[in-house]
Amino acid sequence: MASRAGIVVTGTEVLTGRVPDRNGPWLAEQLRIVGVDTAEVIVVGDRPDDLRWSLRALAEQGLDLLITSGGLGPTADDLTAEIVGEVQDRPSVVDAELEQQIGAIVARLSAERGWQLDAAATAHAVRKQALVPVGASVLSPVGTAPGLVVPVADGRTGPLVVVLPGPPPELQAMWPLVLADAAVQSALAGRSELRQQTLRLWGTSESEIAATLRELGMRLDPLEITTCLHDGELEIVTRFGPSAQATYDSFAAAIGERYPETLFSTDGRTVDDLVADRLMEQNLTIATAESCTAGMLAARLTDRAGSSAYLLGGLVVYSNAAKQELAGVSKDLLDQVGAVSAEVALALAEGARDGLHADLGVGITGIAGPGGATPGKPVGLVHLCVSGNGRTMSRRILVPGSRAAVRTRSTVAALHLIRQLLTQ
Amino acid sequence: MASRAGIVVTGTEVLTGRVPDRNGPWLAEQLRIVGVDTAEVIVVGDRPDDLRWSLRALAEQGLDLLITSGGLGPTADDLTAEIVGEVQDRPSVVDAELEQQIGAIVARLSAERGWQLDAAATAHAVRKQALVPVGASVLSPVGTAPGLVVPVADGRTGPLVVVLPGPPPELQAMWPLVLADAAVQSALAGRSELRQQTLRLWGTSESEIAATLRELGMRLDPLEITTCLHDGELEIVTRFGPSAQATYDSFAAAIGERYPETLFSTDGRTVDDLVADRLMEQNLTIATAESCTAGMLAARLTDRAGSSAYLLGGLVVYSNAAKQELAGVSKDLLDQVGAVSAEVALALAEGARDGLHADLGVGITGIAGPGGATPGKPVGLVHLCVSGNGRTMSRRILVPGSRAAVRTRSTVAALHLIRQLLTQ
Repeated sequence: MASRAGIVVTGTEVLTGRVPDRNGPWLAEQLRIVGVDTAEVIVVGDRPDDLRWSLRALAEQGLDLLITSGGLGPTADDLTAEIVGEVQDRPSVVDAELEQQIGAIVARLSAERGWQLDAAATAHAVRKQALVPVGASVLSPVGTAPGLVVPVADGRTGPLVVVLPGPPPELQAMWPLVLADAAVQSALAGRSELRQQTLRLWGTSESEIAATLRELGMRLDPLEITTCLHDGELEIVTRFGPSAQATYDSFAAAIGERYPETLFSTDGRTVDDLVADRLMEQNLTIATAESCTAGMLAARLTDRAGSSAYLLGGLVVYSNAAKQELAGVSKDLLDQVGAVSAEVALALAEGARDGLHADLGVGITGIAGPGGATPGKPVGLVHLCVSGNGRTMSRRILVPGSRAAVRTRSTVAALHLIRQLLTQ
Repeated sequence: MASRAGIVVTGTEVLTGRVPDRNGPWLAEQLRIVGVDTAEVIVVGDRPDDLRWSLRALAEQGLDLLITSGGLGPTADDLTAEIVGEVQDRPSVVDAELEQQIGAIVARLSAERGWQLDAAATAHAVRKQALVPVGASVLSPVGTAPGLVVPVADGRTGPLVVVLPGPPPELQAMWPLVLADAAVQSALAGRSELRQQTLRLWGTSESEIAATLRELGMRLDPLEITTCLHDGELEIVTRFGPSAQATYDSFAAAIGERYPETLFSTDGRTVDDLVADRLMEQNLTIATAESCTAGMLAARLTDRAGSSAYLLGGLVVYSNAAKQELAGVSKDLLDQVGAVSAEVALALAEGARDGLHADLGVGITGIAGPGGATPGKPVGLVHLCVSGNGRTMSRRILVPGSRAAVRTRSTVAALHLIRQLLTQ
C-alpha cells in the first residue's frame, strides 16, 4: 500500500483568501513524484486550537506523514513549531546554535537591504524562531525560519510531522533537505510509484467525455481518472501504478481516436508550452494588438524565460484612438462595423504584425462587460484573429460569465488560435 | 459564542493544484459577513473515503455548519451528493421534478450553444444530477447542478451540510438561496457580528510591525490581528466583535501615527482601487510602456469595469527595436546606458504618454531572469518611471526571487509609484 500524507497550510490570510494557497498544491505534487499520495490539504487560520485539531484529526486518519507550511515568522500569531511540539509530546526549547545562525542571517539581510531594526525586537524575534521541539531535527533556514522534522514522542505512535516555512520560495528551496532527512525516508518506506498523465482537449464538453468513459467501462478500472474544465479547456488527469501503464496507453489511444480534432496535448504540455515550442521550432516572431484583454496575451506569451526569441512586442489598444494611431485601423472601418467585429480583429492582427515587423500578428477585440453591450453585440462577444506566415485564422466566441472570465477565456482562445495556425 | 463553519472543497484538480481553490476563500468571506467564523477549509480529491472522512472529522469538531463545493457534475468521479446523504444518514433517490428541470436546462444550453450530445449519455448524466438525499431541500440549479441543504437524520445530532456546485459563478449565484433557506437560518441562530478591517502598508517590514504589536501589548487583547506580506505589501487584518470597535480604532490610529509614510490604505481599498479612484477624481488618463512586465500593468489597470475612462492604451516593448519604434527611445540612449536603466524608464514613460496623448505615462524596464544579467545589472533589477501632470517620479528596485516574482512585484511597484505621484 502507498504511503499517504496530509498537508496543513496555516495562515488566516490564506484561510480568508487574501493570499492564494501556493504551498498545498506544490507539496502534493512533490509528494506524488516520490510516490506519496496526498489525502487532504487543510487550511487553518492562525489559531492554536484549530491547528491542534487539524494535526490530531489527520493523525487519527492513520496517515504516515504530515507537512505544515507557515506560522514560523517572528510575530506572535506564528505558532506552528510550538503547537507541533505539543501535539507530538515534545516541549520546545531554544536551540542556541540555531539562534546564532538566524541572528547572523538577520544581521546580513539588514546590512544588505538597509533595514533599520530595533535591536531588542530583533533579538526577541530571532529567539522565537530558534525554538525547537526536543528531539526534532532542524532543516537549515533558507530565509530566516528553519524547517523542522518532528517525530512523535518515544513510546507513542503517530505520523512524522515536517514543519516548513510559509513563503513558497523558502519552502521549495528546503524540500531537498526534507527528502534527505533520515526520519522522512523511514516514514516513506512504504511508498510505491504513482504515475500521472494529463490529456488536454479544446472544444470537447465534459458530458461527451463522461459518456466516453462510461462506454470504455471497466477496462479503465486500475486507473484513477478525473476530468475538469479549466478556462474552456478540458483536462483528463489519470493516476496509476506502474502495472497499469498498458491500460493507460490504450485509454489515451482511445481518446485520441475519438477526439482527433480537439485533443491537443498528451504529454503534459500546456497550450502556452505548445505555442512557445512551435514558434521556436519554426523560427517565427509574433506581436499582439489587444483591446479587451489589454496586455494579458502579451504578458502570458512572456511568462516563460527566453520568450524574447519570439515575442517582439505588443499594442494595448483600449481606446478607439489607440486602435487607429497604434494599429492603423481606419476610422471608416471603426465607424462602419464597430470596434468589436471580425474586420477590426483582422486589422489589429495585421497592424500588430506589420507595425512590429513580426511574422505573426494577433488581434483581440471584445466586450468584457459588465457594461458596453449594444444591440447584436452582447457582453462576452469577442473577435480574435491571427495572421501571418501566409495564413489568416479568425474566430468569434461568446463567453459567459464575469469580466475576468471573458478576458481570461479570450486570452486562452487566442493561444489556441495561434497553436492551430502553427499546426495546420 | 459565534457559529462556526467548516468548508470542504472537493476535486482532485484542486488538491493537485491544477485549478486554484476559488471557493473556499470566497465562502469563508461570505460566512464572515453574516457573522459565521470559518474554522477550516479542507481540500480533498474525488475519493469517497477521503470526502467521508473530512465530513465526519469536521462534524466531530462540533461545528454548526458544513459547506461542500464541487463533485456535482455528470461524471462518475462526482460523488458529493451521495456521500453527504450517506454521512447524514439519508439515502439518495432521483427527484423526478428536478430531473425534468435539469433535462430542460441541458436541452436549452445544447440548442443555444450547438452541442451535439448523445441522448442516452445526456439522460444518464441528468438522472445522476437529480439524485437527492431524502429530506434534503433543493436549491435551484444555476448551471445544471442543483444545490442541496441536507440536515442530519432525525434523532441524530450533527451539523447541517450545504452542498454547492464547484464552478465559482454557479456557487456564488446560489449563495442567496443558501442564506434564505430555513434550515440554514436555524443553524446560524447563534451567530454574532464579526467585523474585519484591513490596514495596508508599502515599505514597512513585518519585523517592524511585530515590534509595534508587542509594544502596544495587551491593549490589543480583544482584537484578532494577523499580518502578511503580499507582493511586497504588508497587510494587517484585524477581526473583532462590535464591542471592540473603540480598541480597533485606537490601534489603527497608533499604526497611522507610527507609519505615516507607508500606511496607504485603512478602508480596505487596494492599491489598484486607489490608483483608479484618483485617476477618475483628477480626470486624468494614463498610458504604459512595459518591457519586462510585457502588458501586466496594462492588464491590471483594466481589471475594473469602467477603466476605459483612464487607460488609453499601452506599448509592450519587449525588443529593443520595439522600444525605439513604438516608444521613440533613441538608439544612442540604448547603446549608451542599456535598456535597463533609469534613463530608458523615463524615455518609455514619456514615449507612452506622448504617443498615446495621455496625461500620465508609465515606463517599466528590468531583468526578469533567469537569464539576461550583465555586470552591474543583476536579475531582479527593475527601473520604473511615471511622468506627467507636471511631475516625474522614478524608482529603482531589486526584487529577489523567480521570474514571476520579479514581474509581479514590478507591476505592484509601478502601481504604488502612480499612487504616490497622484497623492503628493
